[in-house]
Amino acid sequence: MRCQLCKKKAVISSPKLCKEHFIKYYEKKFKERLEKLKIRGKRILIAVSGGKDSSVLAYLLHKYKKEFQLDLMLFYIDLGIKEYSKKGLKAVKILSELINEPLQIYDLKALHGYSIDDFHYKPCSYCGVIKRYIINKFAFENGFDYIAIGHNLDDELFFIMNNLFNQDLHQLSRIGMKTETIKEYKLIGRIKPLYYFTEKENMLYAVLKKIPFDNTECPHAKNSTQLQFKQNFNFSREKKLSLVKAFNKIKKYLPKEEIKLNLCEKCGYATTSKICKFCRIDEMMRKVEK
Amino acid sequence: MRCQLCKKKAVISSPKLCKEHFIKYYEKKFKERLEKLKIRGKRILIAVSGGKDSSVLAYLLHKYKKEFQLDLMLFYIDLGIKEYSKKGLKAVKILSELINEPLQIYDLKALHGYSIDDFHYKPCSYCGVIKRYIINKFAFENGFDYIAIGHNLDDELFFIMNNLFNQDLHQLSRIGMKTETIKEYKLIGRIKPLYYFTEKENMLYAVLKKIPFDNTECPHAKNSTQLQFKQNFNFSREKKLSLVKAFNKIKKYLPKEEIKLNLCEKCGYATTSKICKFCRIDEMMRKVEK
Repeated sequence: MRCQLCKKKAVISSPKLCKEHFIKYYEKKFKERLEKLKIRGKRILIAVSGGKDSSVLAYLLHKYKKEFQLDLMLFYIDLGIKEYSKKGLKAVKILSELINEPLQIYDLKALHGYSIDDFHYKPCSYCGVIKRYIINKFAFENGFDYIAIGHNLDDELFFIMNNLFNQDLHQLSRIGMKTETIKEYKLIGRIKPLYYFTEKENMLYAVLKKIPFDNTECPHAKNSTQLQFKQNFNFSREKKLSLVKAFNKIKKYLPKEEIKLNLCEKCGYATTSKICKFCRIDEMMRKVEK
Repeated sequence: MRCQLCKKKAVISSPKLCKEHFIKYYEKKFKERLEKLKIRGKRILIAVSGGKDSSVLAYLLHKYKKEFQLDLMLFYIDLGIKEYSKKGLKAVKILSELINEPLQIYDLKALHGYSIDDFHYKPCSYCGVIKRYIINKFAFENGFDYIAIGHNLDDELFFIMNNLFNQDLHQLSRIGMKTETIKEYKLIGRIKPLYYFTEKENMLYAVLKKIPFDNTECPHAKNSTQLQFKQNFNFSREKKLSLVKAFNKIKKYLPKEEIKLNLCEKCGYATTSKICKFCRIDEMMRKVEK
């Protein structure tokens, strides 16, 4: 298989590109997407896990930092998931030194008295809530304009299809590359610059550019519905891209759910109930600890 | 694996049912869907191919004929596809005798001078147009209220996903179990009573009830995009059902395309251009024959 541009050996089949042209293509696309996100001059908190996606994200945001006048910080939550968290932490420390961007480490166990491994039933559902809450709070308190996450095309397809399997059109109306900050509810907007890249493309870029990352799968995610989904949904990059684009078109026609936001009576952050999900989890776990 | 209702040996896993309870479940669902289609007292032309889906469809429409006061006829188009058409014809003849419903055979080669095998480039795309045209014309000329087709859940999912791959939202707004007759444009409405049954369920019902059908794959469909799709899209019946239901909800929000219909200047049937697709194909093939 040969590169469609220079006939050197291709490293990827769709599009057929050699190492050099793949990197050019990937970086060009990344910059185009940054442009679309309209984040010039913004302070960005990057959610890093040590995995390939968020490591590539941090690496590239740093690479285009000057051009887009970005102010960056890496944010790592040590979730206390056995070896997985240790390896992730090691990878983000190396990455932070390599790109010379500050790294904030948030130790869940030290600060809250429990780790994700202490949840014995459906840890992933708690983990998602906790991570979103902690990073949002930190970003708000420290004046960041956006949180950048390594969400990729395969992640978004899973999210979309899973909501369709549940016939949940409201969730579907929330897909997309960017959400806006709502200051009065202390909600910091999220950007997903890798939204239109597949997992495979991110992996390839990370490997070719020798970006430090750790490839350990989270032990809780084994046999997860997301992994099962990926095995049963086997389409080309072009087809996946078309699907996500089609759903971003469909989204515009779907009715927006009127969400009544409140501020949590305990912590003062956004919730749709009286007490936010995080505070309820936190209280539950503190009781368990006693 | 045991039946969830009587603990006898199950013949299907989702839902877990024995032969007897599967047949009951299948027939109950079929009748519920007939009820929803509101076709009581109508004249129905059934498009039969000799395959499992349309054979089950004809068998069951006949079974509930009295209850729904239906007037039925089977319609078979001999497309002249080598062994496939011969076997299909044999199967529909046996079926027609078994259920004692009239069978109309339409011989493409004898009436038009060409068969599907005479199309050497993309025969499937011509075949679809030709079949739809011929059955619609026959149904209109003979005063049928609806055409019934054996379209199943897997067929519909392929149609939906394929349109998403093409980002064609207009086609998506046309999905569904029933289209209405538009008399002034000589368009006969189509019903799909097997719309919410999977291919597997139809096959199982056909086998358990010993309904005559022929299982030969159309030779032109080998390696077709539909076959490839089915291999790459591997989800449970529940998930497939949810998807199709979700898309039937989404459909309501999508903008309807304004289609300007005309009557074909050659044959007088509906078209969006001056000359309908069928007449253009027909002219092309008659030239080839000369």
